[in-house]
Amino acid sequence: MNEICDQVKALCQHAKSAAPALASAAGEIRNNVLASFAALLRQNQQRILLANEADMTAARESGLSDAMMDRLLLTPARLEDIAAAMEALVMQEDPIGLGTVRTRPNGMEIKRIRVPLGVVGVIFESRPNVSADIAGLCIKSGNAAVLRGGKEAIRSNTAIVEIVREALSAHGLPADCVSLIPFTDRAGAQALMEMRGLVDVLIPRGGKGLIQNVVENAKVPVIETGAGNCHLYIHRDADADMAVSIAINAKTSRPSVCNAIETILVHQDMADLILPRLQEALESRGVELRCCPRTLAVIGGKAAKEADWATEYDDLIAAVKIVDSLEEAVAHINRYSTGHSETIVTKNTAAASYFTGAVDSACVYVNVSTRFTDGGCFGLGAEVGIATQKLHARGPLGLAALTTEKYIITGDGQIRI
Amino acid sequence: MNEICDQVKALCQHAKSAAPALASAAGEIRNNVLASFAALLRQNQQRILLANEADMTAARESGLSDAMMDRLLLTPARLEDIAAAMEALVMQEDPIGLGTVRTRPNGMEIKRIRVPLGVVGVIFESRPNVSADIAGLCIKSGNAAVLRGGKEAIRSNTAIVEIVREALSAHGLPADCVSLIPFTDRAGAQALMEMRGLVDVLIPRGGKGLIQNVVENAKVPVIETGAGNCHLYIHRDADADMAVSIAINAKTSRPSVCNAIETILVHQDMADLILPRLQEALESRGVELRCCPRTLAVIGGKAAKEADWATEYDDLIAAVKIVDSLEEAVAHINRYSTGHSETIVTKNTAAASYFTGAVDSACVYVNVSTRFTDGGCFGLGAEVGIATQKLHARGPLGLAALTTEKYIITGDGQIRI
Repeated sequence: MNEICDQVKALCQHAKSAAPALASAAGEIRNNVLASFAALLRQNQQRILLANEADMTAARESGLSDAMMDRLLLTPARLEDIAAAMEALVMQEDPIGLGTVRTRPNGMEIKRIRVPLGVVGVIFESRPNVSADIAGLCIKSGNAAVLRGGKEAIRSNTAIVEIVREALSAHGLPADCVSLIPFTDRAGAQALMEMRGLVDVLIPRGGKGLIQNVVENAKVPVIETGAGNCHLYIHRDADADMAVSIAINAKTSRPSVCNAIETILVHQDMADLILPRLQEALESRGVELRCCPRTLAVIGGKAAKEADWATEYDDLIAAVKIVDSLEEAVAHINRYSTGHSETIVTKNTAAASYFTGAVDSACVYVNVSTRFTDGGCFGLGAEVGIATQKLHARGPLGLAALTTEKYIITGDGQIRI
Repeated sequence: MNEICDQVKALCQHAKSAAPALASAAGEIRNNVLASFAALLRQNQQRILLANEADMTAARESGLSDAMMDRLLLTPARLEDIAAAMEALVMQEDPIGLGTVRTRPNGMEIKRIRVPLGVVGVIFESRPNVSADIAGLCIKSGNAAVLRGGKEAIRSNTAIVEIVREALSAHGLPADCVSLIPFTDRAGAQALMEMRGLVDVLIPRGGKGLIQNVVENAKVPVIETGAGNCHLYIHRDADADMAVSIAINAKTSRPSVCNAIETILVHQDMADLILPRLQEALESRGVELRCCPRTLAVIGGKAAKEADWATEYDDLIAAVKIVDSLEEAVAHINRYSTGHSETIVTKNTAAASYFTGAVDSACVYVNVSTRFTDGGCFGLGAEVGIATQKLHARGPLGLAALTTEKYIITGDGQIRI
């Protein structure tokens, strides 16, 4: 452990030393690095896919689940998506630079500028595209990045990080602006969490176990992302077809992701009409329903326990509850939600307005599937994660979340009387 | 302790219940509350000054220092300043409301709006004006506030909070939008730090002991403010008169505040010229100098220890060090500074530009005293504190620091393919 800690510390020190060169590089240079990174990803397709194949083989032998295997897999099409994402970053506005300038009555000029955070640490799981995404976002925003990915993807991540380091070097920037921690066990992550003073912010990107571990154990500031106990509320004045369509999409289109719904709340006046339709639509798609007593009285099935309301299944399971009113739905959501994404289906404008005002979550939807909570879908470009906290940044995190601000005050000898 | 904890919890629950009414109140209503608060502060001048007199009497009997007594004191002029600050808040732009709206290709509309944080907890010391300032900032930004002030000011704070609660009630808002914790010992503060889920953010406002205690012990998110180990660097190309003038102002105009300087760095080529002048100017104003060995060789005096470089004296003491270069000055600052405010005195534009880019602090000055780091001096209006962290907000905290954002997405049945 001590040796791992020392090596991670050395790596973070190199990152901190490299960071100012990237932070002070012009936006054009950072964009050129990204363009080269995209080109090198394409040129090195075979090298990356071979590394990924080795990861897949090892994963298969260790009995990784099909869902996890799918997350780990890179294909030519997926690699092209990654390269295209880097090129899309080039086109995005530079988040670094001048904000406002004001001259005060005493003649001093106050510039408020956006600057990089410094060194960004990211702990993630088995998706190798995350290493490229994060490296790209950090380069665009002028931050050095220290990545610690899951063990399943270590060969793929190593290849991708080697390539981004080549892109940095090609433009005269230190390769250490992006580095990968080679230790994929807990000690590697734990060491990164302790680097107060070297790492400016830590972003856990993955499942709730990972996030909880980082939030509870990190000594460096953390941007909390991802935990999504999301809700669909079917209001009394809902369009039934739309409610069923959104339920299917939000629950089954990708049940493992954080913006999938976990609980469906149904107004009592809609219960007899909508519950049998929901049951048919969801159970035929393999969803297990866990129902409150009143729901059981309408459609039967498995009973929900108290813990179900607070559970992010990330699986083909949905909790179902009948509520008496809009207010009860909002109270239920504000009590059990992780503050990620919630949606109401209603034709009633006043009800929609009350819901969006009173629900205390990052993204509140009206007549839209929660599955859209995503930087790309929102038009924010590549995303670091979905923040469920209120400080610093909330919702899909784009480039701005990777910056802080600085005041630069210039004068000719002003003193405060 | 348990009883205190229960009572603080009940008070925070009342604040959380009251918060949505304030959060959804129109900006005009919030402004009307502030205007009434200002008027009531003037109408109740005698009541507040009597309460403050009782605080002052008790403080005198307990042997409080003159400096602390001065912080505690309210006068008609100081009360008028407080009332005027509330009226100035009325004139400030509403930080709550619509940010951007964008319609996505699938027809869904995404509104990004600024919303209040919810419940803001503030722990502060003996200045009674803080209770009014914080209450005003929270009302303007739509947040409920739970205040815990120092025991010396409990009577003054109680009177001020009673008055702001009257102002809230007068406009149909719950008085519990602002409340004061009546327990002024450690247990009262500790209880507030544990209110995760009830308090959205905690802001310690006071000396470094208070801030450190809150940062280390709070279970709710904290905005770290105030610690200021600030530096003056006298560059080789400095105007000597300006350097001395800024040194005097930044060290002696108010040594107890966080934007006063603690260490003076002098380029070796300026040492023989500037050090005797600094010594004369500062020692004649009662400043004790603690000097590096090379400085001692020029002006003699007391030797600095390693700990001096990291110390925020908040007193008439300054550490002095000779450096070989601009780079060494920047490295010294980035190593020892708390990231608050630093200034360079130089006629050299390139040196100034390097300094402002490379120094990693919230406010970096060129040829200006660090004493200007202040919301009012920056033209940001009343301030919550000076943030020395990088996440959420940095530098003088105005109204925006008391908000978060929320996405509201409206459509007609959009699902994600």
